[in-house]
Amino acid sequence: MTDALFNVHFSAEGVCVGKLRNEVSLTAHEPFQVQRMLATDEGKFQGGEDTAPTPLEFFLTGLVGCLMTQIRVFAKRLKVDVEDVKVTCRARWEAHPDPVGPYQGKPVGFEIDVDVTSGADPARVSELVGAARRGCFVEQTLSQANEITHHLTVNGAEAPRP
Amino acid sequence: MTDALFNVHFSAEGVCVGKLRNEVSLTAHEPFQVQRMLATDEGKFQGGEDTAPTPLEFFLTGLVGCLMTQIRVFAKRLKVDVEDVKVTCRARWEAHPDPVGPYQGKPVGFEIDVDVTSGADPARVSELVGAARRGCFVEQTLSQANEITHHLTVNGAEAPRP
Repeated sequence: MTDALFNVHFSAEGVCVGKLRNEVSLTAHEPFQVQRMLATDEGKFQGGEDTAPTPLEFFLTGLVGCLMTQIRVFAKRLKVDVEDVKVTCRARWEAHPDPVGPYQGKPVGFEIDVDVTSGADPARVSELVGAARRGCFVEQTLSQANEITHHLTVNGAEAPRP
Repeated sequence: MTDALFNVHFSAEGVCVGKLRNEVSLTAHEPFQVQRMLATDEGKFQGGEDTAPTPLEFFLTGLVGCLMTQIRVFAKRLKVDVEDVKVTCRARWEAHPDPVGPYQGKPVGFEIDVDVTSGADPARVSELVGAARRGCFVEQTLSQANEITHHLTVNGAEAPRP
């Protein structure tokens, strides 16, 4: 906590709209301020109305976008020439039986291909991409088991923790 | 692998556009098919042009949207009456010093408040939300340390792994 260079603090509030559409109001508190709404939905396959992208598309866009941004931002900071970057990510999950619900979600793995167009030494580009991975808030989140705390209220009253 | 009820397989291909804008083409391969493009950008604070939401907004929308969707979908499957759902998520990261790059991203934690409007027994709602957490592909991804493999090419040629 004490040796942090800066803090990043976001909050997101989702409300239900339509069959499976969610409208999520996002607020960035630190290190910059922004407020925005993004909507998710599901296709007819899942009982949605296909009015917006699915949650997993948002999730993967966050991962790929964050890594690409850090590669470009860190390239300037580290003075590594980068003309272009392409990132491809393949993400797999499995659904397994659950004692209560219809299934459990189980992540299988994430494969990321990075192609950089650059006049720099490839070893230096590799060093840059390594630094960008460590600087990518999303990749670092996926790399560790995170503390996720839940608090449940039913009709506004405290309920047993889920 | 063998006892999976179904597989989920998505891919995402990001290309650079503008100063820090990324255009990410998403393909859902299983269990349904969809293709879509979502763009990320950064505000002027980070050197972007603010043409699209930031990666962390996409990431959190994926988390909140996935959990909310599973609560509603599983409520039907488990026959728990759910009239409305609101989810608030507070997410914190810190930036710490790095030997090479400007900083490392370090996740601090995720706090999720779920409020369900329901005529059902609160214990039953808690059971539902617990099942939805286990069924939420994004929350399950954040709960474990995931395998993330990287493959780097520079100008199309193999480069040292980052």
